[in-house]
Amino acid sequence: MAQKGSYRLSIRIYLPSGLRLGPGKIALLEAVEEAGSISGAARLIDMSYKRAWDLIEELNTSLKEPAIFTMQGGSHGGGSKLTRSGKLLVEYYRKFEQETYDSGKSSLRAISRLMLDDNS
Amino acid sequence: MAQKGSYRLSIRIYLPSGLRLGPGKIALLEAVEEAGSISGAARLIDMSYKRAWDLIEELNTSLKEPAIFTMQGGSHGGGSKLTRSGKLLVEYYRKFEQETYDSGKSSLRAISRLMLDDNS
Repeated sequence: MAQKGSYRLSIRIYLPSGLRLGPGKIALLEAVEEAGSISGAARLIDMSYKRAWDLIEELNTSLKEPAIFTMQGGSHGGGSKLTRSGKLLVEYYRKFEQETYDSGKSSLRAISRLMLDDNS
Repeated sequence: MAQKGSYRLSIRIYLPSGLRLGPGKIALLEAVEEAGSISGAARLIDMSYKRAWDLIEELNTSLKEPAIFTMQGGSHGGGSKLTRSGKLLVEYYRKFEQETYDSGKSSLRAISRLMLDDNS
């Protein structure tokens, strides 16, 4: 969930497949990229490992290419990374969010002005 | 929640007061305007009367002017209507939603194209 000025937005996209794409899944993908593993990502964003797996499974089965791939063995053992598809998904979602802030600036300000705690 | 093309959006705005403004509260306000009462509105959108009251109470205490006023007595008995503030809140939220669709069209299309069920 991004923050700009005095409000934050949470945007959820409902795809025709039934997939809901919102701040939770996107934060999880970003955390996988940062932590280098699903378990590390889950810890990073304080999500249960099971829930993280479930969300990633849901994403992977909705996308043409999985969002995450898990490396087998090697000197560092398992570990997971975002695929190109996963990276693009994060990039497009964050871009969409930014566009929403930019295009909606004056409407958001108008909403704020109706509020008791408005200090604009 | 609005629908355009093959996806729908749900946008929630978090105001500094802690008020969350999303599709549920906005649909409730629109239903009050349509039904002319809070109980009628709750029926219309299949919400419990208690929940409808709680949401309206939350809105009314966050706004400079309440979103809804309830008429006392008269030939039609009680009944509720949106105040100017309530009408503006709905208008600005819907405008914001429309701006989000318009500005985010190409990002949303890009997200759709990553999906298995993409038919664009």
